[in-house]
Amino acid sequence: MQPVVMKRRILKFLNEHIKDAEDIIVTEFPVTVKVNEQELVTMVCTPEYIEDMVIGYLASEGIMRRYEDIKEIWVQEIEGYVHVKIDKLNPYFQNLQNKRYITSCCGMSRQGFVFANDALTAKKMNEIRVKISPDDCLRLMNSLQDTATTFRDTGGVHNAALCDVNGFKLSRMDIGRHNALDKIYGYCLRNNIPIGNKIIVFSGRISSEILLKVAKIGCEIVLSKSAPTELALELAENLGITTVGFIRNQSFNIYTCPERIQKR
Amino acid sequence: MQPVVMKRRILKFLNEHIKDAEDIIVTEFPVTVKVNEQELVTMVCTPEYIEDMVIGYLASEGIMRRYEDIKEIWVQEIEGYVHVKIDKLNPYFQNLQNKRYITSCCGMSRQGFVFANDALTAKKMNEIRVKISPDDCLRLMNSLQDTATTFRDTGGVHNAALCDVNGFKLSRMDIGRHNALDKIYGYCLRNNIPIGNKIIVFSGRISSEILLKVAKIGCEIVLSKSAPTELALELAENLGITTVGFIRNQSFNIYTCPERIQKR
Repeated sequence: MQPVVMKRRILKFLNEHIKDAEDIIVTEFPVTVKVNEQELVTMVCTPEYIEDMVIGYLASEGIMRRYEDIKEIWVQEIEGYVHVKIDKLNPYFQNLQNKRYITSCCGMSRQGFVFANDALTAKKMNEIRVKISPDDCLRLMNSLQDTATTFRDTGGVHNAALCDVNGFKLSRMDIGRHNALDKIYGYCLRNNIPIGNKIIVFSGRISSEILLKVAKIGCEIVLSKSAPTELALELAENLGITTVGFIRNQSFNIYTCPERIQKR
Repeated sequence: MQPVVMKRRILKFLNEHIKDAEDIIVTEFPVTVKVNEQELVTMVCTPEYIEDMVIGYLASEGIMRRYEDIKEIWVQEIEGYVHVKIDKLNPYFQNLQNKRYITSCCGMSRQGFVFANDALTAKKMNEIRVKISPDDCLRLMNSLQDTATTFRDTGGVHNAALCDVNGFKLSRMDIGRHNALDKIYGYCLRNNIPIGNKIIVFSGRISSEILLKVAKIGCEIVLSKSAPTELALELAENLGITTVGFIRNQSFNIYTCPERIQKR
């Protein structure tokens, strides 16, 4: 497999002088996904857990309906292709792909879903299956930052983890915002790990794209170190997802569906 | 025009208590670009300078060849469409769109260009038209952070500026990584501002996508507060672009083409 980081000779300006130094740089690996021999998408990612990422992507985008529909998947590493054979392609997918969503759905304005196929796979959370305390929020974010030590110095990777109140089940990192979430989702599908009763912890901003990915995966709580966007919060309200952001220095903000955060 | 930020009632956890608070949240605005009545792309952006962004996008992607080929552009605001009438569409564009780049170009491996249309518009910098000092690097990054004060508290927007050694010519912010650069490029095309002798200062990571955008705009130096990726640096070496990253606390790293940074 391709390396995840590479060493590189650089010039460092420090204490008013420029000198030679060595730095560790994250790699970017472009993989093109071919489904039933047709090119579907090119994803630029951190080259690890690539099969999981592709499975998570195909499932969350609604390209296949069940994991069992994947008959074959193999990575053509040097050339950067992932070949997938799917038995029954979701018939709705091809009609909806890249179509703007115009009709409103479950009471949302057009600001809700941007693309029609997002409405196809994003799940609405009607129940409260998980509750966490403020301490859990702080503790889980600290754990995410501890896990991310290897890449602290290279900068610029996003970290995501799937966990329950007892701690992490798995964590993944990627240079692409939602690739880390696709890697988690794909792993869970392959290993039959239930997701609905768990929590996503994320290092990056909660954009609409990330919120939709959380909804497609089927999680009802997302914790972030960073800020959400307004569109993400509108989606979260409509889909019934609890969003907690700016988890830093013993404080945080609860933006939507606070009923899953236990009061003290 | 749509608002750039919105106020929102949230719950804040601080000093071991949860209480009501007000927060300022950045908006995300989806705009669908229609060229000669055909849907081209949907971009999610911060809703300001939208025409500039679309012009910058069309030019950098090589969809039109000259700014003068745009005969009409208007924003259908509520519905989120931008309509563009272009006289002569670049004939190469449609053949190359989303095609993986396989043949190598200017000595690059396949890791160089991922998409064929990137190779179409990315300019190779053979000359040294700009030189800057280490002090300029530190000073320009400080100015970028000063400019960004309005949105410091909302988190999660990318800031970009076009400048020369004397300071900023213009700065733009956006929730989308490369939208801020498209907004700068579009403004320069509309107002006939030369770019080749200027510098891009960017708050985010230098990914291959950002590096390519800098090359398409035609800048030969990019300064960043954050880290580059290995693929971006390979592209920068091949295209002759100077990349400086991790500009923080009076220090920085010079990754490629150091001949444009004056030694003391």
